[in-house]
Amino acid sequence: MRVLGVDPGLTRCGVGVVEGRPGSPARLVAVGVIRTPADDEIGARLVAVERGLEKWLDETTPDAVAVERVFAQHNVRTVMGTAQSAAVAILCASRRGLPVALHTPSEVKAAVTGSGTADKKQVGTMVTRILRLDAMPKPADAADALALAICHVWRGGVQNRLASAVATARSGRSPR
Amino acid sequence: MRVLGVDPGLTRCGVGVVEGRPGSPARLVAVGVIRTPADDEIGARLVAVERGLEKWLDETTPDAVAVERVFAQHNVRTVMGTAQSAAVAILCASRRGLPVALHTPSEVKAAVTGSGTADKKQVGTMVTRILRLDAMPKPADAADALALAICHVWRGGVQNRLASAVATARSGRSPR
Repeated sequence: MRVLGVDPGLTRCGVGVVEGRPGSPARLVAVGVIRTPADDEIGARLVAVERGLEKWLDETTPDAVAVERVFAQHNVRTVMGTAQSAAVAILCASRRGLPVALHTPSEVKAAVTGSGTADKKQVGTMVTRILRLDAMPKPADAADALALAICHVWRGGVQNRLASAVATARSGRSPR
Repeated sequence: MRVLGVDPGLTRCGVGVVEGRPGSPARLVAVGVIRTPADDEIGARLVAVERGLEKWLDETTPDAVAVERVFAQHNVRTVMGTAQSAAVAILCASRRGLPVALHTPSEVKAAVTGSGTADKKQVGTMVTRILRLDAMPKPADAADALALAICHVWRGGVQNRLASAVATARSGRSPR
């Protein structure tokens, strides 16, 4: 399965696409960052994030999208922009009928490093190793997006797709 | 000018359209609520809010959209859904090139009741009086959306449009 990981943000929204199966090596498909100018209005920034994500979805055709779960508790100053950027990612994926999974930062860290409290450098190092890359993806948001995608692949896409199929059947929409 | 006020939320997203000018009586155009089932996935709920708002924008053709500004501090349990629903409203309006204004709850209360700490009932009573309605709009989310729209009209759409035009010129997009 091919997964697009999204580390949401307005200034830098990390995007990383990984292909793999639970128990098999994961392969890098593409990685990057969607940036929006800090002095633009919130509306223009959200439109730019939407446009960027639509391009990534069109070009990388993932089977599922994994987005970092945003909590209200921490980083009060920036959490609203992060939550709103996450909303755009969830919306873009759902509009196409793609299953969306939300993973917490500690789930992602635990999946790639074995510790839910690992720091950014450790996550970057493990992402580089797991995907057999020559260098650590930069900035950290890009590495985090790949970690999200790897986490989603390893946590078992099958279960996620089953849950999604059940949800689709329940809501009466045609499955995809 | 015609303003669509949006009181964001996933369970109930209030929408109210008002027509008027600063210093003149305001007139009700339409009011309602977009609801999404609490047991649906977040993605399906955001898609439903988007679809609902697009319909309101198509049918009421506002000149501007006023959205309640969401703060991270209060209502931690529901604030994420509110912020994400607000993001969809800002996105839908901005995608059409409509100016978006964010007003805080106390700005809205002060605009319609004269007090920034007025309760919901007082806001509803004043909205009913200002728009010369026979009954208070229900639920409270619908009345709040109208209060937002009234607040925006009275705070001077001209200033808002000027700011928006400046922002548009700065960002190099064609004005509308």
